[in-house]
Formats: sequence, C-alpha cells, structure tokens
Amino acid sequence: MIQCPRGTRDFLPDEMERRRYYEGKLRSVALRFGFRETETPIFEDAELFILRSGPNVLNELYAFKDKGDRDLALRPEMTAPAIRMFVNSMGNEPKPIKIFYFGQCFRYERPQGGRYREFFQFGAELIGSATPDTDAEAIALAAAMIEALGLKNYKIRIGHIGVLRQKLADAGVPNEKTAEVLQKLDKKLYDEARPMMEDLNVDQDVMGEIFELTETVGGTDIVDKVPGEAGKYLRSLIAILSAMGVSDVEIDLGVVRGLDYYTGMVFEVEAPALGAEKQICGGGSYTLSELFGGEKVFSTGFAIGFDRILLAMEKEGITYEQTGIDAYVVPVSEDVRIKATEITAMLRKAGISCDMDIMGRKMAKALKYASSARAKFAVIVGKNELEGDSVTLRDMGSGDQETVLISELVSAIQG
Amino acid sequence: MIQCPRGTRDFLPDEMERRRYYEGKLRSVALRFGFRETETPIFEDAELFILRSGPNVLNELYAFKDKGDRDLALRPEMTAPAIRMFVNSMGNEPKPIKIFYFGQCFRYERPQGGRYREFFQFGAELIGSATPDTDAEAIALAAAMIEALGLKNYKIRIGHIGVLRQKLADAGVPNEKTAEVLQKLDKKLYDEARPMMEDLNVDQDVMGEIFELTETVGGTDIVDKVPGEAGKYLRSLIAILSAMGVSDVEIDLGVVRGLDYYTGMVFEVEAPALGAEKQICGGGSYTLSELFGGEKVFSTGFAIGFDRILLAMEKEGITYEQTGIDAYVVPVSEDVRIKATEITAMLRKAGISCDMDIMGRKMAKALKYASSARAKFAVIVGKNELEGDSVTLRDMGSGDQETVLISELVSAIQG
Repeated sequence: MIQCPRGTRDFLPDEMERRRYYEGKLRSVALRFGFRETETPIFEDAELFILRSGPNVLNELYAFKDKGDRDLALRPEMTAPAIRMFVNSMGNEPKPIKIFYFGQCFRYERPQGGRYREFFQFGAELIGSATPDTDAEAIALAAAMIEALGLKNYKIRIGHIGVLRQKLADAGVPNEKTAEVLQKLDKKLYDEARPMMEDLNVDQDVMGEIFELTETVGGTDIVDKVPGEAGKYLRSLIAILSAMGVSDVEIDLGVVRGLDYYTGMVFEVEAPALGAEKQICGGGSYTLSELFGGEKVFSTGFAIGFDRILLAMEKEGITYEQTGIDAYVVPVSEDVRIKATEITAMLRKAGISCDMDIMGRKMAKALKYASSARAKFAVIVGKNELEGDSVTLRDMGSGDQETVLISELVSAIQG
Repeated sequence: MIQCPRGTRDFLPDEMERRRYYEGKLRSVALRFGFRETETPIFEDAELFILRSGPNVLNELYAFKDKGDRDLALRPEMTAPAIRMFVNSMGNEPKPIKIFYFGQCFRYERPQGGRYREFFQFGAELIGSATPDTDAEAIALAAAMIEALGLKNYKIRIGHIGVLRQKLADAGVPNEKTAEVLQKLDKKLYDEARPMMEDLNVDQDVMGEIFELTETVGGTDIVDKVPGEAGKYLRSLIAILSAMGVSDVEIDLGVVRGLDYYTGMVFEVEAPALGAEKQICGGGSYTLSELFGGEKVFSTGFAIGFDRILLAMEKEGITYEQTGIDAYVVPVSEDVRIKATEITAMLRKAGISCDMDIMGRKMAKALKYASSARAKFAVIVGKNELEGDSVTLRDMGSGDQETVLISELVSAIQG
C-alpha cells in the first residue's frame, strides 16, 4: 500500500477544517494590520537559499535538477522568496511594503514531535523601513496573531543583535567570523564558542562579559542597563510596543538567531508547553535584497510555525467546534427522488449547506449518515407530504419533527 | 538577479487578493454542496503517478530522489493523492465520502498561454458510490462553481466511455489495447487510430461506426439515440441534472479522456474564449483505489484548472473590485506618535483594518501612501485636536474632514 512520504501528512476533513479555521484567523489579523497577502512558488533556484543561509543549507534542502538541468530546491522558508519577489517586481511600490504569506516549506531532517519534512509557515515582512515603529509593528502583529488563536501560555523574547556584534567587533573579532561565533552563542554552546574566540585572540575578561551579555534576560526595565545605540533603540521599541498594548515581553540579549543577515532587533516567541521544540515564532530586522541583486533595503519580518503553534494549542486544550451541514435531504422512496433533488438544489441556491442521499439508502441508514455529517436538520421527502407541497423537517439535535411547506422550508431552516 | 523558476509565478498583493477571493467562492460552493476539504503533500512516491497514468508520465514529472534514495515526484494532479489518502485512512468513513481540495500541481512542459509548470487546481471527489445521482452531483458542483465565479460563456460536454468501450470490445479489440485506441479517438486522431485498429483486425464498417460515434454531439435529446446500458444511464443522469437546474449541457460521445481508469460517465467544460487551450474542467467516474493497494471502490471526480478559468474570466472582462483598508493613521508631528500608535491599536482591536505611518513621513506624503493603500479614511492625529480628545477624520473618497472625539472614532469609521 502506498503511503504518503516520510515526514509528510494528509489532512483529513476534521483536521483540515480546524486548520483552515485558524489559518483564516491569522489571515484576518494580518489584513487588519494593513498587511497584504502574496504567494511565491513552491520551488526556487537553489542558489537563493544558499545566498541566504550559506552552502550548509544544502544538507537539509530538497534539491533537484529539472529536465533543463537547472538546480532547484523546495523552499525551506519563505523570507528569501519574498525578498526575491520584492527585488524582481515590487521595488517601485510605495514603502513600507507590508506583506504576509502562508504555505508549505520543506526540510529534509529527522521527523519528530512537531517537526515535519513538509511543514506550514505563516510569515510577514515589512520592507523598506528601519524604524523602531517598524519592528514594533512586526512584533505586535505576531502577538495579535497568537492572541487571536487563543494560545495562553507563551513568551515573547526580544533581543538586539547589535549589542553582541558591537562587543565582538570591539574585541577584535573580524566581521566574517562574527556569524560563526554568534551561532554558538545563540545556542548557548559556550564550550564551542570559547576555543573559537580564543583562536581569535579575544581577551578572557571580554569573553566573560560576552557570555554574561547572552545571559542578560529580564523584564522591560532591564533595557536601562543595555549600553549604546542598541539600548536606546530597545527603549524606544518598548515604549511603542506598550502603546500598542504589547507589554508582556521579555528582553533577552541572548536571542541572536545565528543568521548573518539580521541587522538589529531579533525576537522569538516560545510556548513552554512544547518542551525542547518550544519556539513557535521567530524574526527580526535584516537586509537580504542586496544578496539577490537588488539595492540594500532594510526589512523586518517573522515566521510563525503553524504546525507547532497548533500543537501548543492542543496541549492547552483549546478545542475547536466542528461545524456541520445545515440540512440533509432524505427521499423516502425512489419515486420522490427527483423531487428531493429539486429541493436540495433549491436549498443550496438559498445559501443553505445541504446534502442528499445519492446511494438509494433506506431512511434509518440515511439518518445515520446525516448524523455523521453533523447535519442540523434532516429534510424527509415523502409521497404523502408532497401531496400537500410539504416535507417533514427533523431537528437532528432534539429529534423533533414538523411538517413544513416547501415554500417555507428555507426560512424554517435558517431559523 | 535571481528570478522565479521558468513556468512559475509570484502573486503580488492585487493579484493574490483576486485569487483568494475566487478561491473562497469555490470553497464556499463546495461546502454548500456538503463536500469537505482535505489536503495531501506537495510530493508523493513517484510510483503513485506511474500507477495512475503509466510510465510515460515520468516525462512530464518533476521527479527526484530524496537523501534517503526514495523516488519522489511533485504532484502533477491531485486525484491519485486523494485516493491514496482514502485507501490509507478513510476506508471506514461512511460512504459516500465527499471531499475537495485546492492547491499547486506541477508539470514539466513548455510554458505557454494559460499553461504553467506550477499551476493551481480545484478538485472534488465522491468516493464509494456509483449511481447516476453521484455523477450528477459532481457535474452540478462543477457547474455551480463556474456560475459562482461569474463566467458566462462555457459549455459542459458529457460523454460515456462505456459506449465506445463496448463497441471496441464487440469489434474484438482486446482489453489491454482499448486505452491506446481511446486516446487517439479522444483527440480525434483518426489517421492514427485507423492503422491501430486495422492491426487489430477491426472491420472497416465497424471502424466507420466507431468514428461516427465519437462525432455524436448534440443536445440532451441525442441520448435517445445512444444504445444499451450507457444510453439508459445517460438518460437517467440528464433527468437528475435537470432537477438540479443544470440543463444547458451537451452530449458528446467523443469525450473519452484517454485514461484507463475511467469507467463510465466522463465530462469536460470548456471556455471557448481560451482558443486552443479551452478546457477549464474535466472529470468522470473511475476506480483507482485497487491500483494503490485498496479494495476496488467506484468514485466520481473532477478538477477545475484555476489559472485557466481566471484567464477565461479576464477575457470576459469580469472585474474584481479590490478592497482597501478602513483607516490610515497619520501623526502630524513626532510628539503625538505614541498617541497615534495607541489609536491605531484601538481601531484594530475593534476589528477595523488599519495602518499607520511608521516612517515618520510628512502629512502630504503620508496621505499619498493612504491613497495607494486604498484607505477609506485618514485619521489625522494633531496636537491641538488631541487637547480636546479628538482627531481629524478625513474621508479619502470625498476629501471631507471632520473633528471626531476619539471615543466616537470607531463608530464614525464603521458608519
């Protein structure tokens, strides 16, 4: 029996309805914030992702050659495609460009709890603006999305890559080595960061200060202690966020996100209920466009891991009430089938979601099917009632039945 | 500059909004008909598509090996994945199973008008039922979807593969050769079908009758002339369709769709405005599950080419009115920016789609941006008005301005 490929999933109707419902919530929040939706292809020139993340990314890409010998890759994330699209086609749009997107991404890695080879991300980018207001807007959108989903237990951690970058630069770490060190610091791998910095002749005291910085975590009052431009920037950001109603955030200078293209503010959202794989959202301010052949343009963006946030919601017991169809039409005998078909068509035309037995089932079986389809009403079409231009309307919840004129059926169902 | 791969597209905000709008229409019709949405992975075991369509399909597949040496392929269509999903996980659900899905498919072919390497399909399947009512439901859903989109000029052509199959069997064409001949007949390639049938010793007179059958086209009254079981079936189907309000259909026994797995009714919808590539929808009744390791189950399904139908709508001049945001907030000076931010957050919380200048622009430039974002109102936040807890509300259509209390701003905007 052929199965779906390892690390991918089928979404059956109940689960799909739930996913579409929450996807719709995310979309409507983004639209409310003045973001507009875009879509890019499922695969891209593999070079795009190598430019963004370095050649190591090939190890986890689904990369392949097409029949024209082009090197393509299924997208592992959607920021690079969004910025490529901006460089190709949106350079002349009024700034800031505010876009969002939702879709599948692909990463060849060991499938485990909440991690899939085909996974879904919701992302947003503000392109062409580099103010604290821009960063605040991104964080506020992420927060509003998570709120809209109903998740209760989550933590927003905001950092600024400029603090550590400045410190490393002051300590004599050359620019091209910074990313490597930051990646280790991001994961708090001090034992691996230490020999790296020793090789770069970083003073032991300074190293201590750097480790201490990555451990600087606390409420928003902690920004008073953050030195230099980054401190000033974070104070401004926090004031704006507070005006936006987002004040339950944590400052964490250890959030550095280990990618070379981040330029300043970085943030992550985690749902502690998820354990080791607790990050549900991450983002920050960056420049990428110049890597793809465009001018250098400042942007801020983030991505929400849709599968993971749904998992966190499940763990919190957030339930979603499945909707059913409004009516299920049951012809009592074969000779009223055409009439039942007409009634079905009439109800659908009136906007009522409606289904009908198409397998010639007997009443009891048909009503059982109506139950499984969560129908609110069964419309029972019998010969005797039809003589009075009527049908029997059965409330599937209470079991109550009444005779209703066909001409009044729509309003009887719509209540 | 890196571009999106050949045959793929980016969808910028205006186009994406239009696509989501019409996708939503299709979805809501399907739900109204009692179908439920599902989703399958972007790629599958390549074998799945070979089983469905034969090894020739490899020529147009995006096929690749993953790092575990599995042969995978981007899906070229979604019926085989849907039936695989049914075999894997939905065998015990009450029948008929009525599902639909929407998404990207991939075919490596020469890109041309309305044909892309990444294209979008909307499809539906009724699984586990083999009645004329089942086929009618599928055709009626396709028709209602096309109606909902507003397309005016289209033609539904219904055929029955049983007529030609019976004729070929009677003429002594062995079962395993039927598909090959039908493929030629489907494309009206008589010059290629003739030598094939001659090799199979088909009588010249019978061959003439076969060619005549494939040219049997006309209104529903033509079914009276269709012989045997297939004729009886089509007459019943047409009566049900008519009860469903779908009577503008054509019978065309030349529609055979050249795929081995079709078992009876087949149908196509074409939009003549599209010229040579005019087919916008195709489907029929089939069995596939037994090829994928399940029991043999009768199904009826169809797929709508979303890109092509949008193109047909464009050619008919069907326009879609873009919506804009409700309000754009403009702080007149830097010292009221925080207050403006609070107002923006308040409006969003009230469900008003709202954006705010985040680039510190002067009034005239900010209003220009508000126009480009199609804002209905500009909310101008100035120091003087704030002293009276008010702002200036500007109707972006008429240019009229009035002073409005902040506490009454939500209702002033909601009208």
